[in-house]
Amino acid sequence: MRLPSSSQPSPEHVLVFYHPQIEGSLALAEVIVTFLAQQLGNDVVKASIEDPQAQTHIAEQDLIIVLGGDGSMLRGGRLTAPHQVPVLGVNLGRLGFLPEAQPEAWQAVLTRVLAGDYWIEERMMLQVEHQRGEERLGAYQVLNEAVVGRGALARPVRLKTMIDGSDLTTYVADGLIIATPTGSTAYALAVGGPILPPQLKNILLIAIAPHLSMDRAIVLAQGATVEVVVRTEHQAILSADGQVEVLLDDGDRVSVRVSDYVTRFVRVQEPTYFYASLMTRLTQNPSADKSK
Amino acid sequence: MRLPSSSQPSPEHVLVFYHPQIEGSLALAEVIVTFLAQQLGNDVVKASIEDPQAQTHIAEQDLIIVLGGDGSMLRGGRLTAPHQVPVLGVNLGRLGFLPEAQPEAWQAVLTRVLAGDYWIEERMMLQVEHQRGEERLGAYQVLNEAVVGRGALARPVRLKTMIDGSDLTTYVADGLIIATPTGSTAYALAVGGPILPPQLKNILLIAIAPHLSMDRAIVLAQGATVEVVVRTEHQAILSADGQVEVLLDDGDRVSVRVSDYVTRFVRVQEPTYFYASLMTRLTQNPSADKSK
Amino acid sequence: MRLPSSSQPSPEHVLVFYHPQIEGSLALAEVIVTFLAQQLGNDVVKASIEDPQAQTHIAEQDLIIVLGGDGSMLRGGRLTAPHQVPVLGVNLGRLGFLPEAQPEAWQAVLTRVLAGDYWIEERMMLQVEHQRGEERLGAYQVLNEAVVGRGALARPVRLKTMIDGSDLTTYVADGLIIATPTGSTAYALAVGGPILPPQLKNILLIAIAPHLSMDRAIVLAQGATVEVVVRTEHQAILSADGQVEVLLDDGDRVSVRVSDYVTRFVRVQEPTYFYASLMTRLTQNPSADKSK
Amino acid sequence: MRLPSSSQPSPEHVLVFYHPQIEGSLALAEVIVTFLAQQLGNDVVKASIEDPQAQTHIAEQDLIIVLGGDGSMLRGGRLTAPHQVPVLGVNLGRLGFLPEAQPEAWQAVLTRVLAGDYWIEERMMLQVEHQRGEERLGAYQVLNEAVVGRGALARPVRLKTMIDGSDLTTYVADGLIIATPTGSTAYALAVGGPILPPQLKNILLIAIAPHLSMDRAIVLAQGATVEVVVRTEHQAILSADGQVEVLLDDGDRVSVRVSDYVTRFVRVQEPTYFYASLMTRLTQNPSADKSK
Repeated sequence: MRLPSSSQPSPEHVLVFYHPQIEGSLALAEVIVTFLAQQLGNDVVKASIEDPQAQTHIAEQDLIIVLGGDGSMLRGGRLTAPHQVPVLGVNLGRLGFLPEAQPEAWQAVLTRVLAGDYWIEERMMLQVEHQRGEERLGAYQVLNEAVVGRGALARPVRLKTMIDGSDLTTYVADGLIIATPTGSTAYALAVGGPILPPQLKNILLIAIAPHLSMDRAIVLAQGATVEVVVRTEHQAILSADGQVEVLLDDGDRVSVRVSDYVTRFVRVQEPTYFYASLMTRLTQNPSADKSK
Repeated sequence: MRLPSSSQPSPEHVLVFYHPQIEGSLALAEVIVTFLAQQLGNDVVKASIEDPQAQTHIAEQDLIIVLGGDGSMLRGGRLTAPHQVPVLGVNLGRLGFLPEAQPEAWQAVLTRVLAGDYWIEERMMLQVEHQRGEERLGAYQVLNEAVVGRGALARPVRLKTMIDGSDLTTYVADGLIIATPTGSTAYALAVGGPILPPQLKNILLIAIAPHLSMDRAIVLAQGATVEVVVRTEHQAILSADGQVEVLLDDGDRVSVRVSDYVTRFVRVQEPTYFYASLMTRLTQNPSADKSK
Repeated sequence: MRLPSSSQPSPEHVLVFYHPQIEGSLALAEVIVTFLAQQLGNDVVKASIEDPQAQTHIAEQDLIIVLGGDGSMLRGGRLTAPHQVPVLGVNLGRLGFLPEAQPEAWQAVLTRVLAGDYWIEERMMLQVEHQRGEERLGAYQVLNEAVVGRGALARPVRLKTMIDGSDLTTYVADGLIIATPTGSTAYALAVGGPILPPQLKNILLIAIAPHLSMDRAIVLAQGATVEVVVRTEHQAILSADGQVEVLLDDGDRVSVRVSDYVTRFVRVQEPTYFYASLMTRLTQNPSADKSK
Repeated sequence: MRLPSSSQPSPEHVLVFYHPQIEGSLALAEVIVTFLAQQLGNDVVKASIEDPQAQTHIAEQDLIIVLGGDGSMLRGGRLTAPHQVPVLGVNLGRLGFLPEAQPEAWQAVLTRVLAGDYWIEERMMLQVEHQRGEERLGAYQVLNEAVVGRGALARPVRLKTMIDGSDLTTYVADGLIIATPTGSTAYALAVGGPILPPQLKNILLIAIAPHLSMDRAIVLAQGATVEVVVRTEHQAILSADGQVEVLLDDGDRVSVRVSDYVTRFVRVQEPTYFYASLMTRLTQNPSADKSK
C-alpha cells in the first residue's frame, strides 16, 4: 500500500463505467464526463461496464471511474488489475464497502484526484484454477472470494482440503469460501468470519454450513496455497466473486494462491478509514439494498 | 409422546424398506425378512424405499423397518406419517440421529419390539405450502426442515418473513431454514442453530449466511405460522427435507405451519436417550460418511 | 398470557419506583405521581426501588410503575412476582427490551392503563437453588437468567450438567447461562443464543466461552429441570439476573426449574409487538447506554 | 521461523522443569535427568517451574524441558523468551497444543534433539502495558493473550478500543481478548475466533459475550498497536495468559503491541504439523482434562 501523498500523478485519460441496471448510473456518468472534459481539456468517454468493446480500452487509461455498488467495484477490479490501472468508485449501491465516494461528494473527490491529491490502496487478489485430472479447465482472478460448493440442491458436498500440499481436513458443508481480506467483509462475513483489513496478504478459509466438520475460520500464512478436491454425487459449483459460475464434476480440483495482480483503488480518505468506518458499515441494513 | 410401556401392540404386518444405493442394505433386509417370517409365522415383504408400488402398501402395515441413515429415515417418516404407521430404523449410515438400532443390534431390538416392549416417539412435522399469487402450487410434509433460498448462484436472496401475519424482518441470505425439533440437529445445526429435543412442538427459524441481516435463531411459540416471500433476480428454490426441490419465482410465497401428521419412531431406549447420546452424536466425524 | 381486552381492572393503588442513580428518574416520578393523584383522586406514593421499606408495600398495590431500564425492570419483576402485582415500565435506559412506554409517551400509556385498556403479559421465571451437600444455602427467583461460572480469574470452570436427572455433558467454559425466554435477549444473546418470544415456557441453556466442549444452545422441554455441579480450583460464582452474586465452592450444586411465580408486565401495544420491534431492538447501539 | 535442519546446535546445558501439581511430572523429571546426564556426560538439574531460584538459571541453559500441559508451556515461554533459550515440551496435560512430545515418546524426541536433528519454531509474543493517567503501572509479556474484562460480577464492561491510534469501536462485553496466533487456539477459540497458524505475526481481537456491539473477530495488520480504555462501575481485570491478574480502575488504559521477544519451541515434527494435527486437537474432549 502506497501511503498518502499529493505527489500522485494527475490522471489525463479517464474512462467512466456506468452500470446499465443501476438507476441513476448513466445519468451521473454523463455529468461526470462533462465535468472531466472541462477539467482535462480532452475527450472523456463513458461506457457500460458490461460493454466488451469498452473493456479493451482500459489499458490506455490513467484512471477508471466506476459508478455502482460493491458488485460493480469487483468487476472493475478484475477488469483493471491486469493493466495496473487504478479504480475510483462512486457509490450507487446502498451497501458500499469498496467505493471511495458517496454520490453527493463525487465532485469534491474528483477535484482532489485530478490534483494528484490521493493515494493508491493495493488490494490482494487470488488466482483460482480449475483442474480435472491433468487438465486445466479454467483460471480466474478474484478480488473477494472463490467458493467451492453445492449447486441448487440443498445438500452438503465433501471438500478435501490441503494447505501447502498438507492435508487440512475434509469439509462436509454447503461450500468453502476462500477469501481475500477484501472478501472478509463480503460472503465470509455472512458465515461468521473474521475481518481482515485491506493491507493484509493472507487467505481466509471458512465453510458455509459445515455439518459436524471444521467450523472455524482459518487465516493462512502469506504465500500459502489451497487445494480443494470436490466429492459429490450432485451438482457442485465453483463461484468467482459471485459473478462467474463453473460446474464442477466429482473429483475436480480447485487450487488457489495469491495472484500476481492487485486491484488499485484510488483513495482520498485517511488510510485509517477502514477501522474508522467499520462499525458504520457493519450495522447498515441491506434489506432494501439494490446494489450490483 | 407416549411414554415407555410393555403394553404396546405386537406388530404382525411388517414391511422392510432397504435403500438400493446403501451397501449392505439389501443383504440385511433379506436376513431380517427371514427372521421376521419365522417369528411372526406369516409373510414379510422387503422392498426398495424408492419403489412406488411398495409405498402403496404402507397403510396395511403395523410396522415399517427402514435400513439406512438419517436420509432414509426422513423418507420413511414422510411416507408413513399420513397412515400413522410407526417406523423402526436400523442405522446403515455413519451418522444416525434418527435410527433406533445399530446394525449389530437389530435382532435384540426387533425381539423387544415383537414382544411389545417398546414405545412410540411422536415427532412433529411441518406442512409447507408453495403459493404464487392466489394459486397453491404445491404442499409438502417435512420432518427436518423446509429451506427457502438461493439456487446454484452463490448470491443471497431477499426473504420477507412474517410470523403469525406480523412482519419479522427481511433476511438477505443464502436461505432461511424453517425446521422442526428433529431438524434442529440437521441443516440448522450446521449454521449454528440451537438444539431442540424431539418432544418440543416449536418451529425453529435460522438463516444460512445472513448478510448484515438477522443472524439469530428464533424459536417460535407453539402454533405459530411462518410466511416467506421471495425476492430475487436469480434462481430461488424451496427444498423439503433436502429431498424435494421446487423452483421459486420472484414474489412466490412459502407458508409453514405445524402439520396435522406426526412421524412415529419406534424406540426401545430410555426416553432420556436424546440428552444422553447428544454429545456423542455431535462429535462424530462425518467426513467419510456415506449415509443416505 | 391473557389476550388484549379493555376489560382489565382499572388500578386504584399505584406505587411509583424511581431509580436513584438514573438521571431524570426522580423528577419524572414526581410528575407522574401528581398526574396519578389527580386522575385517581387518592394518594399516590413514589419511592426508590432500592428502599426496603417501600418494598413491603408492594402487596397492597394494583400497579407498580418502574422508571428505569431493563435492569430496573428485572428488579421490579422479582419484587412484584410473589405478590402478583403487575408492573408498568417507563424506559429511562437507552436499551429497553422490557419497559412498555418510551419516556415521552408515559401520559398516553398511563391514560389507557387507568381506563382498563391494557393487557397482562406473563413472563416465566426460574427458581434457582444453591446446594452444598445436603444443605440448601439459598434460593432465588430470576426473570432473565442464572449464570454458574468463573469468578474474576479468566479461566474456565467445569460444569457437570444434568437435565431431568440424566447426564447431558460437562461444560468447560467461563460459565453456563440458564435463561428464561425473557433472558434470551439479554446475556444469552451476547453469546450467540437463539431468541425465544416471551410466551414460551422453555428453559434455554448456553455456555459462555465453551472450550472444546458443548458449544450449542439447547432449548429444554417445558417442565424440565437442570442441575449443575461445579468443579473448579479457583473462584466460582452463581449470578442471579446479574444482580445477586453468590460464591460457590468446588462441588456445589445449582438446580434450576420453572418458578411458580411469573412477572406480570402491563402492555398496551399489540401482542405482536415482540416480533415487530425485534430487529429495531437488536440493532440499537448500546455503547453509550446508561441503563440500570 | 527457522526451517528444519539437522545443523542445529546440540544442547549441552539443560534444565528440566516439572510442575509440582501435575501427577507424574516430578517422577518423569527424574528419569529424564538421569537419561540426559548419561547422554551429555554432565550434570543436569531439575526444578519446579514455580521455583524462583531455578528461574534465575535459565539464561545459562541451551535448552529448557517442560513437563506439563499448555499452561506449563505458557509459563515456560514467558520465562525463557527474554533469554532466547528454546523450550521443549513433554505433554502431561490431556490437552496439548504446545508441547512437542507425547509422554511415551520423550526418549525418541530427546535423542533427536541431542543430535541436533530439530528445528526452532519462533512464536510471536505480545507486550502488554497497564497505564493509569500518565503512569505505567505494569508491563507483561504474553504468549497466548491479554484479556481486558469484567471481574467476578457477571456484567459487561465498556472497552473503548483504538487501533494504531484510530477509534475502532466501544465493546460492551464480558471482555476483549487480544491474542497472538498461539492464543488463537486457546481462549479466543472458545468465543468463536479464527485459527491463525504459528508463523503469523498478526494480533487477533475478539470479544467475550459482546452485547449488541462488535461481535466479529478482527485480525490486525502486522505491527499494529491496540489500546483499550476501560469504562466500568464494577470490578475490571487485566489477565495475562490466564495466569497473571491485575485489577483495573475505571479509565485505566491497556496497550498491546508485538513484543521484541519470541518464544522458541523445539520441534522435531514436520513444519506442516500444525495443519495436519489441527482437526485432531480441535475434537479432543477436555472434559476430564487436568492440564496446568
